[in-house]
Amino acid sequence: MPARVGDLLADIATPALIIDLDVFERNLDRMRVHTSALGVSLRAHAKMHKSADIAKLQMSRGGAVGVCCQKVSEAEALLRAGVGDILVSNEVIGEARVARLVRLAAKGKITVCADHPDQVAAFSRAVMAQRAQSGNNDLILDVLVEMDCGSRRCGTGSIAESVTLAKAIATAPGLRFAGLQSYYGRAQHIYAPAERQAALNESIALTTSTRDAIRAAGLSCDRVTGAGTGSFEIEGASGLYTEIQAGSYAFMDADYAKVRTTDGSTPGGFEHALFVLATVMSVPGAGRAVCDAGLKAVAVDSGLPLVAGTTGVKAIGVSDEHCNLSDPDGQLRLGAQVRLIPGHCDPTCNLHDWYVGIRNGRVECLWPITARGKVF
Amino acid sequence: MPARVGDLLADIATPALIIDLDVFERNLDRMRVHTSALGVSLRAHAKMHKSADIAKLQMSRGGAVGVCCQKVSEAEALLRAGVGDILVSNEVIGEARVARLVRLAAKGKITVCADHPDQVAAFSRAVMAQRAQSGNNDLILDVLVEMDCGSRRCGTGSIAESVTLAKAIATAPGLRFAGLQSYYGRAQHIYAPAERQAALNESIALTTSTRDAIRAAGLSCDRVTGAGTGSFEIEGASGLYTEIQAGSYAFMDADYAKVRTTDGSTPGGFEHALFVLATVMSVPGAGRAVCDAGLKAVAVDSGLPLVAGTTGVKAIGVSDEHCNLSDPDGQLRLGAQVRLIPGHCDPTCNLHDWYVGIRNGRVECLWPITARGKVF
Repeated sequence: MPARVGDLLADIATPALIIDLDVFERNLDRMRVHTSALGVSLRAHAKMHKSADIAKLQMSRGGAVGVCCQKVSEAEALLRAGVGDILVSNEVIGEARVARLVRLAAKGKITVCADHPDQVAAFSRAVMAQRAQSGNNDLILDVLVEMDCGSRRCGTGSIAESVTLAKAIATAPGLRFAGLQSYYGRAQHIYAPAERQAALNESIALTTSTRDAIRAAGLSCDRVTGAGTGSFEIEGASGLYTEIQAGSYAFMDADYAKVRTTDGSTPGGFEHALFVLATVMSVPGAGRAVCDAGLKAVAVDSGLPLVAGTTGVKAIGVSDEHCNLSDPDGQLRLGAQVRLIPGHCDPTCNLHDWYVGIRNGRVECLWPITARGKVF
Repeated sequence: MPARVGDLLADIATPALIIDLDVFERNLDRMRVHTSALGVSLRAHAKMHKSADIAKLQMSRGGAVGVCCQKVSEAEALLRAGVGDILVSNEVIGEARVARLVRLAAKGKITVCADHPDQVAAFSRAVMAQRAQSGNNDLILDVLVEMDCGSRRCGTGSIAESVTLAKAIATAPGLRFAGLQSYYGRAQHIYAPAERQAALNESIALTTSTRDAIRAAGLSCDRVTGAGTGSFEIEGASGLYTEIQAGSYAFMDADYAKVRTTDGSTPGGFEHALFVLATVMSVPGAGRAVCDAGLKAVAVDSGLPLVAGTTGVKAIGVSDEHCNLSDPDGQLRLGAQVRLIPGHCDPTCNLHDWYVGIRNGRVECLWPITARGKVF
């Protein structure tokens, strides 16, 4: 463990992932107010933090109806730790993996996505096999059609395909057609408001047409789920989405802080609650310092980290175990601590084993990163 | 665990880190031949693989005298698992962390680096405190001067500074001046041979002058350690370096495979032994496929992964849990496995908990990634 409850910041073994609990709680409260005002459910994205403690707080304090995650192994870890309502917002492939998913559906409220008829058939076979084995003939798996609404990743490629797949789910033994997964990850990170709005208008129009076509085919389609921190205000106001899959709102990262709404503010007014606490380990020359958080402590896929609480100090390069800092005014002494704001919180959190919760300068709690490394 | 001994590739839960054991052993054998021919010791860089099993094979089969690593927590994990000779090739800062290091020096052969007199004083205080506490007055810590030979990261900034620091170490109670750490990480990744040679010529000249100045000050300086997979042939032939800190040679990654020697081959003739095994989870449209290894399974700081064993299939984008593949000839079916060659092996290995060793298409061994997440 990187610290003990009651420790001062200076006692924490760095690099460590720390949460400013006051800010974190404000972020949870803000999202509760937003989703309530929008009249949509919050299904907090646990792929971001991978922590059962945080998932439960998002539900109890933050008003979430449950969580979503991307991997069966994440769902296994979260369900085991007491999170009872989980959407695996992704395709699940392979006989052994599908069997694991179906075993979870016998223990909690589980929903999954499909974008191909072979998957629907595999889900159905696995449920029927589990029914035969367990004698539980009420077992049913909720399946969403995942449509490609613009991300060009997974998802059905046309309205006709979505309707066909919805029908296949609805008629497959052991499955229930549960609605539409329409998640436009890329649009959530478009910084300029007009451009983001335009991308989402297209996505919302296509999703509406798809839902209506499914209804016209005689199926009910009351659940439309998707959206994220950078875009939920738009999807939430559309009247189409019933569930918002935001994750990063709880922590905020440097990339999401670049996203702007029409009035120039950041979406939702969320603040940075997550930092990588690092120590200056070398002051090798004028204007330079090196801290002990490298690529194995902070993800750089969305850019270099920002340095919190200072003016003038900037990250200029990150290698495996080091972050080079430019420090033109010579503010940093050997052994000083710095707080880095990660460019992207999801892959950063997955590098660590513990969250260290801080309030009033002291460690208040340590939360294990329940599903760290659960990628399978 | 992602697999069991005896499993076929198809049984492995993906994404998983797999090692082609035949290739891996050839790489170990090649490096043994190279370092023996060059007349230098191999100190294999365990920051790359973080595995005690691999470290021991590098020593027993591969001829390494020991390993190096970057963090005290890595050294703790490796020493606990039976690796007895470890250089922490990095600065170590903070009273608690230095005390942990010194406790290790009571159990194994430990060397560490310094680039600042405050660190030297801290090491000395910690050794003397440990002596007083344990009654072991033979306890001594070997300390190298780390000089900046071109990387502009940590390290002393001038010959005079290096000499002063070497003297401080040599006269500090409980410490032994052990030589020079001169590691030019950036040069190891310069692809063009002439440019790489030029950078290393400068570094070797500066390191030679530094060693000579330390000797002229009356200290012996028989150990000069550094170099890596992309450059060891040059440093190894210099007559200056006594120890080679190569790590990636055992696995090879896509970035190191771009480095060229004057005859157009890759340094050392090493081959790709490490792959992220992934499964095609969606075939959403003509010419496209999506596999289940994203940023949490393969590091992209040194570029996108390559796809092994296919022509025409290319990674075109990696997000948290997905890798988008371009597949113009439609070779990939739903459920097919692909092998990704990581752009950078070090941060990729740190994402996983197990290596799955493969020979003749079957799982032969599972090795825990002993120091996974040990960043403190």
